[in-house]
Amino acid sequence: MPQPRGWFHPRTATGRASLIPAPPWHYSGDLLTVEYRTDPERVRELLPAPLEPVADDPGAVAVIWADWQSCGDSREELLDPVRSQYRETFVVVRCSYRGRIYSRCVYIWVDKDFAIARGLHQGYPKKFGSIHLTRPHPYGPAPRPGAGARFGATLAAADRRLAQAVVTLREPSESGGFVNAHPMAHHRRLPAIEKGGGLALDELIASGAASFEAGPAWRGEAELDLFDAPTEELARLEVREPIAAYWRQVGVVWDGGTLLESGTSGTSV
Amino acid sequence: MPQPRGWFHPRTATGRASLIPAPPWHYSGDLLTVEYRTDPERVRELLPAPLEPVADDPGAVAVIWADWQSCGDSREELLDPVRSQYRETFVVVRCSYRGRIYSRCVYIWVDKDFAIARGLHQGYPKKFGSIHLTRPHPYGPAPRPGAGARFGATLAAADRRLAQAVVTLREPSESGGFVNAHPMAHHRRLPAIEKGGGLALDELIASGAASFEAGPAWRGEAELDLFDAPTEELARLEVREPIAAYWRQVGVVWDGGTLLESGTSGTSV
Amino acid sequence: MPQPRGWFHPRTATGRASLIPAPPWHYSGDLLTVEYRTDPERVRELLPAPLEPVADDPGAVAVIWADWQSCGDSREELLDPVRSQYRETFVVVRCSYRGRIYSRCVYIWVDKDFAIARGLHQGYPKKFGSIHLTRPHPYGPAPRPGAGARFGATLAAADRRLAQAVVTLREPSESGGFVNAHPMAHHRRLPAIEKGGGLALDELIASGAASFEAGPAWRGEAELDLFDAPTEELARLEVREPIAAYWRQVGVVWDGGTLLESGTSGTSV
Amino acid sequence: MPQPRGWFHPRTATGRASLIPAPPWHYSGDLLTVEYRTDPERVRELLPAPLEPVADDPGAVAVIWADWQSCGDSREELLDPVRSQYRETFVVVRCSYRGRIYSRCVYIWVDKDFAIARGLHQGYPKKFGSIHLTRPHPYGPAPRPGAGARFGATLAAADRRLAQAVVTLREPSESGGFVNAHPMAHHRRLPAIEKGGGLALDELIASGAASFEAGPAWRGEAELDLFDAPTEELARLEVREPIAAYWRQVGVVWDGGTLLESGTSGTSV
Repeated sequence: MPQPRGWFHPRTATGRASLIPAPPWHYSGDLLTVEYRTDPERVRELLPAPLEPVADDPGAVAVIWADWQSCGDSREELLDPVRSQYRETFVVVRCSYRGRIYSRCVYIWVDKDFAIARGLHQGYPKKFGSIHLTRPHPYGPAPRPGAGARFGATLAAADRRLAQAVVTLREPSESGGFVNAHPMAHHRRLPAIEKGGGLALDELIASGAASFEAGPAWRGEAELDLFDAPTEELARLEVREPIAAYWRQVGVVWDGGTLLESGTSGTSV
Repeated sequence: MPQPRGWFHPRTATGRASLIPAPPWHYSGDLLTVEYRTDPERVRELLPAPLEPVADDPGAVAVIWADWQSCGDSREELLDPVRSQYRETFVVVRCSYRGRIYSRCVYIWVDKDFAIARGLHQGYPKKFGSIHLTRPHPYGPAPRPGAGARFGATLAAADRRLAQAVVTLREPSESGGFVNAHPMAHHRRLPAIEKGGGLALDELIASGAASFEAGPAWRGEAELDLFDAPTEELARLEVREPIAAYWRQVGVVWDGGTLLESGTSGTSV
Repeated sequence: MPQPRGWFHPRTATGRASLIPAPPWHYSGDLLTVEYRTDPERVRELLPAPLEPVADDPGAVAVIWADWQSCGDSREELLDPVRSQYRETFVVVRCSYRGRIYSRCVYIWVDKDFAIARGLHQGYPKKFGSIHLTRPHPYGPAPRPGAGARFGATLAAADRRLAQAVVTLREPSESGGFVNAHPMAHHRRLPAIEKGGGLALDELIASGAASFEAGPAWRGEAELDLFDAPTEELARLEVREPIAAYWRQVGVVWDGGTLLESGTSGTSV
Repeated sequence: MPQPRGWFHPRTATGRASLIPAPPWHYSGDLLTVEYRTDPERVRELLPAPLEPVADDPGAVAVIWADWQSCGDSREELLDPVRSQYRETFVVVRCSYRGRIYSRCVYIWVDKDFAIARGLHQGYPKKFGSIHLTRPHPYGPAPRPGAGARFGATLAAADRRLAQAVVTLREPSESGGFVNAHPMAHHRRLPAIEKGGGLALDELIASGAASFEAGPAWRGEAELDLFDAPTEELARLEVREPIAAYWRQVGVVWDGGTLLESGTSGTSV
């Protein structure tokens, strides 16, 4: 008998209804990155064993706003853009695993379900949010990328504003920041269906871009505000010292990752 | 060292940011159910082995609209209702496993992220949708439950209307329908992070309400329209013969389920 | 030649596309009202001449959350509930005009365009917002109306939370509050299309319900928080002294009002 | 006594809460225009006297998708982009008034309340919609403007898809189309508050851009689908013959218009 098909749920007779196709996934997007230092203890408390804090600049945090268009290999989503466009805000720290430095997304909010689904596969701890960031434009009042250009960015969830930033670009930059510059080390976990049954899935995985292209990066400074909320802990990563802010346009392909280890989180949920 | 906490992602120092708390989960809601018969082959093609079609009335389908308020044991979500209120449309068929009849949700759309997260645990194949259903009200033009009362219900996703129904109540009913009246048999699946690696999680689980209370049910008839869409297969479950429609208010507690079997779907994704 | 038709824009060959039908408009809804006293000067500064503050309790304010289903005379919107359901938060004070007391809505947020359109006709100064309020329910964790029942309510706009309340009901009440209990005195204004041209429309109008029915009211107390925002002045109406809170279900018909005076605001915009 | 201030509602002590500031309004945006011919009678039936059909190509229609960032003179909205970014789909025909040709927007959907408010001033018959259009991007899978580039665009309202287009660019173009190339002739109307009282505001106004800059235009062809809906008449403007499609980036300033005539629509609403 033919079996239901589809890379992701729901699985159906044709597979067409799958919320997302199999990788590779392709992305065009603008990244606005704000890097700063917080109390290193606030970073450490987010790192489960066997991940460890990095020795160099252990309190460095990146808050990144991204404005994406994405698709699978068929690229059909690009022509029905409600299926390709989404925005996200994500918070990245660094950690060390077996002597190697990884980036790690500790918080992330997106505004589409297909992005939630991809995040489940990639180990991003996604929630829904409302995300906005200024777009560059060659005409009218919106900024042209360059010295003095200003970009605003905001994040809200559950009808509360959680973060906002205003970035002023100052000069060309070699990079778009150093905190989100390593392969990602993420957990994929799901509790067992039986109460008290521990974890049904418990993996530490690594992944990064299969290919990456980027335009000129610009560096500047940011005003960043983080707001407390009953259901969030982002504001614990308080800003102690600004580092820099960056704006850059990128093209990315993501095509799978590597299992680092499995079943080592213990049964505690 | 203290470890990050939280029943669901993200896991943090206090656990407060977890998208959902551990079960039990409590629900108050209104259910509008439309039952009909489709081609039994359209049901069968949605059932992966070892699930089998039921012998009796194998083409029966239920399309259910629900208007929920839900919370964890703390009940705090009820007082910040953006965190407790959500709506969903779900499509249920029946199947047989080891000689026992189960209900199975083959499609479901919800409008909040916490509902997506619960569905991942429970094996519901949730996507995002925009869901509306008429609410009863004791004053003004909205319907009072009873003979002749009419309720409308609609579902859209990705900016396309996928289903709509108008239900007219006729008489009191012993039940709220027979298709969604069994324990649920669901799959929980996640592809491996490594390309071609098969499934990292592959479970068949069963679950049902830990407790259930319900008000008087009303039965009537429905006009039901299902619309085709490039990313959906709901319309394949075409209406061949109406059965009945039902309206009922319920209170439900969900508190975990049972693993039926694991790792038997094969490596195909 | 036949002319385009429609009570509201857009006007078309059949009139079917009109955003709203002509009155009467019918409403079923739940009202959660929080009354308190602010600095009377904060109320007075919102009253344009010839409106004057009331002598008795001039600092009284009502913040009201409403969960509506509404329709025109055809009632067709009720069966396509995306067109009938909306929520709103509105802020009411009292004023005096020619010796008579009126209620006046000074701020209001709604979540549907048809509600914006009705407000333009009725003189409500509507903006878009995200509004939530706990609904009563006979089963499960949601409250049953009665002593001790608790309702939460929130308002956000432009991704910022502007107000939130938690109301605890204590006892039956004769009324649902006194601030929003008078006919409404509202302005309808539109600047001239020519720069510096003053006002093209400048009316003071009165209106009230053409008919009104209501269920038992309950009175209790509220915790109310108002939050500042760059584009709002709601928080200027700071809470000095709580009065009471009320919950009630109502049915309302609105069917036009009365022109009190026209063209007296002066040309200042 | 100081009077409440604000160019638009609500009017307050400081004027800060006004939904929109006084013009001028500044815009940066991308325009995707699809021009075609329909039955000229379908255009004529949308033109109230004294507007008349144009003699040359009277069935020409433009359906335009726009992706905007906008602000007032302070430009503060650009740094809180939830207040500056919006999208719209609008439908334009041409008409003749006193021997001069005007463009006229007959249908328009937007996704923000500040855009609704501006439209009231400018005579655009705005409703709410969900609008998406592909954005150009220099990296990754999104299109680079140029020959062969493909853009998708969709419109939905009340949870129904109303229009969709796929545009393929072919060659540079002198213009971005001819249908929306004239000053706009719009009505501003509001029924009287008293039932049967005719119109309180009834103006025919003209307006156009106070300044306009644009990048290179590209011309190509479009597949355009218009879908029927119970509350819309867009699909009456059926596609008889495609003309062309255009993509262009623009900067615009709008700063008021001219009253053509007033009170000539008759009292019929």
